[in-house]
Amino acid sequence: MKYQVAIIGGGPAGYTAAEAAGKAGLSVVLFEKNALGGVCLNEGCIPTKALLYSAKVLDMAKHASKYAVSVSQPSFDLGKMVARKSKVVRKLVLGVKARLTAQQVTIVQGEAFVVDAHTIRCGEDTYECEKMMLCTGSRSVIPPIEGLGDVPYWTHKDALDNKEMFHSLTVIGGGVIGMEFASLFNSLGISVTVVEMQNEILGGIDGELAAMLRNEYGKRGVRFLLNTRVLSVKQTDGLIKVTCECSGETVEVESERLLLSVGRRPQTEGFGLENLNLERDARNCIKTDEHLLTSAPDVYVCGDLNGKSLLAHTAVREAETAVRHILGEPDAMDYRAIPGVVYTNPEVASVGSTEDALRNAGMAYEVIRIPMSFSGRFVAENEGQNGLCKALVGSDGTLLGLHMLGNPSSELIVMGGMMIADGRKFSEWKRYVFPHPTVGEVLREL
Amino acid sequence: MKYQVAIIGGGPAGYTAAEAAGKAGLSVVLFEKNALGGVCLNEGCIPTKALLYSAKVLDMAKHASKYAVSVSQPSFDLGKMVARKSKVVRKLVLGVKARLTAQQVTIVQGEAFVVDAHTIRCGEDTYECEKMMLCTGSRSVIPPIEGLGDVPYWTHKDALDNKEMFHSLTVIGGGVIGMEFASLFNSLGISVTVVEMQNEILGGIDGELAAMLRNEYGKRGVRFLLNTRVLSVKQTDGLIKVTCECSGETVEVESERLLLSVGRRPQTEGFGLENLNLERDARNCIKTDEHLLTSAPDVYVCGDLNGKSLLAHTAVREAETAVRHILGEPDAMDYRAIPGVVYTNPEVASVGSTEDALRNAGMAYEVIRIPMSFSGRFVAENEGQNGLCKALVGSDGTLLGLHMLGNPSSELIVMGGMMIADGRKFSEWKRYVFPHPTVGEVLREL
Repeated sequence: MKYQVAIIGGGPAGYTAAEAAGKAGLSVVLFEKNALGGVCLNEGCIPTKALLYSAKVLDMAKHASKYAVSVSQPSFDLGKMVARKSKVVRKLVLGVKARLTAQQVTIVQGEAFVVDAHTIRCGEDTYECEKMMLCTGSRSVIPPIEGLGDVPYWTHKDALDNKEMFHSLTVIGGGVIGMEFASLFNSLGISVTVVEMQNEILGGIDGELAAMLRNEYGKRGVRFLLNTRVLSVKQTDGLIKVTCECSGETVEVESERLLLSVGRRPQTEGFGLENLNLERDARNCIKTDEHLLTSAPDVYVCGDLNGKSLLAHTAVREAETAVRHILGEPDAMDYRAIPGVVYTNPEVASVGSTEDALRNAGMAYEVIRIPMSFSGRFVAENEGQNGLCKALVGSDGTLLGLHMLGNPSSELIVMGGMMIADGRKFSEWKRYVFPHPTVGEVLREL
Repeated sequence: MKYQVAIIGGGPAGYTAAEAAGKAGLSVVLFEKNALGGVCLNEGCIPTKALLYSAKVLDMAKHASKYAVSVSQPSFDLGKMVARKSKVVRKLVLGVKARLTAQQVTIVQGEAFVVDAHTIRCGEDTYECEKMMLCTGSRSVIPPIEGLGDVPYWTHKDALDNKEMFHSLTVIGGGVIGMEFASLFNSLGISVTVVEMQNEILGGIDGELAAMLRNEYGKRGVRFLLNTRVLSVKQTDGLIKVTCECSGETVEVESERLLLSVGRRPQTEGFGLENLNLERDARNCIKTDEHLLTSAPDVYVCGDLNGKSLLAHTAVREAETAVRHILGEPDAMDYRAIPGVVYTNPEVASVGSTEDALRNAGMAYEVIRIPMSFSGRFVAENEGQNGLCKALVGSDGTLLGLHMLGNPSSELIVMGGMMIADGRKFSEWKRYVFPHPTVGEVLREL
């Protein structure tokens, strides 16, 4: 069988590439060994958001009296929450399948193996292709902690599928995934401890906002152990004991469940990548150019596998860029304006440079910050809460970074990305008419 | 007393102008006869959104089981809802006052009267100014309906302050204000009938979305009488009987309360406007140019008073533009990209041209529509619902109009406004990285 484009991996990079290439009239085969949609759709972005929304409804019910609404005894059924989450996932997986089928993409269910840059084997069959796109994504890092082999632990996937209630959870790793689960289980009334090796949660996110979010969750009962290294884990009497070290002191945390969320790593093994002998970059990731082309002239790597950003929306944009390159259309990947969102409640959203990054680069910048309560709508819809909108601005007024805490930052942050990608001044927001009252108006108040 | 800028009216136009002029170092006096913030803040945009959010919390409680959360007997206290609304308003009014005070604006509480283009009288005092800005806003239109003088009726202001529950409401006028109150009272369990003279609610909004919203509220029990003209009203036995005519048939509607929301008209009387002899346009509104300057060389008219758009956010942008003109800075008002939002649940948001407007103008356009369920986040957070995102595109791909039904369209629509204001192609959204999963991603799916 011969195709113009062969794609390994049906996550956001793979399915976007397949749809785009198919739409352009190319013959496309896509290999997926698990479920279409990849980690993002099946065990990442989407299912977490479905569960987090149930938690948000529960939170809202608990705090309804702030808005003069009374409800008695809000409760929840975790089994049903998980079932709803799975229904949302199924619906969206079917949507992806329908979109690929509509573009005549051949979907092969199975483990693909790269023979050479123009040949893939899957089961008994051999496929030839003109262009190859590797989109195998990433996997959870399991840190080498003493005793880990002898205790039951969760990664995000297990945490999403668990239907049984429990009382306490230790989260190792206070990054985005760790914090989203800390938020979810805190809302469900579970006692959560987050152990973080760095001096602040959410590494890579603006430190001021990270600290604000940590304080907020601290007030809600989440316990944070910063600057804390996990030494060992051990199961005793149905509890998991995590032994840590913090400033020379030993700290012990006991909980019923243990979630590992220390990071993700490109999925480079098991599909014959080594047969391509692709050039690596300084971080030992596969080297890709602005068209996502590797050192092999017909092989593209999109999404987490190239180790550049490990975000679904980066993967999508990379896949589009790579397909345009195959089609000979002008486009290039720009990594300066990729937003990041933490879907806690309130949300944190960020795009462009952080203060740390600018300081490290020795760049001059000004910080403009306004409280979210400058927005009348924010005040009307967030009783007793506040948030922060923080712009980092270059000496000529160019927007360098935008960082927001407060709902619905996730939906607003892209406007910062647009300004940054276009190298525009933040004051240009003032030229546009934002509807009143909206939270987005804070941007033109900056 | 002499000031560089004198402003009559402390609503969005007036307070924005005062703050901007004060910030630029001009001496400013602002006259307000009622409360700072004007109709928008005290009896319009903000208080409706505060009450609508309470209604949203109640709706969410009622539908919590969709998300596996159970609450028993959600109920509400209208008195407390209204009290919270008033607290939100007070907080924001204080915020406006603080911002003006911070810029050394002199706030005069009282009715101002224009003597001539450089003189204002207020009580015993006379104020001279170099530039005058008239920002007196608009007032509710009370239609000449037979019997109206003998029945108790509400305008939006009364509806916002009512603390007593009731069972039934007739809303005369199915525009934005009428629909927001229909939504509010429907959520509170009140039987609502909307009487609309046109053949569809929400005149000026995309007809397809208006019909979708009407169907949605129809399912929730709101009764709509379209193409229906009110002939007379009469009170009998504590009920208000509204007699209407529809296609030659007489229809009678009875309800406990009656809300008039047939529109608003510039507030041109009672402050000596006639002394300025300002030129009028074809619609008999005060003529203003792109700097909001009138035919009098030192008199600007911003906000609803000029009758151009009657929206708070237009007023804000106009006020900024006028102040820049006073300061000699380049700027000009652009009315092509002013968003409109209906804060029902779901929201409707719209910017640029409608299909009707393009057809009437004889312009060629293409309609691109995608369901909101193309967004994974929308699916995760809107169980059992859908919505529509509809772009109207010129023959060269330029975005001419964007129309959305579904939350949080209000926060997304400005991105359409930015594209339209800049004359850009809708496909340019694809160049940017939208965070995943967000509802905003629908824009790059168009």
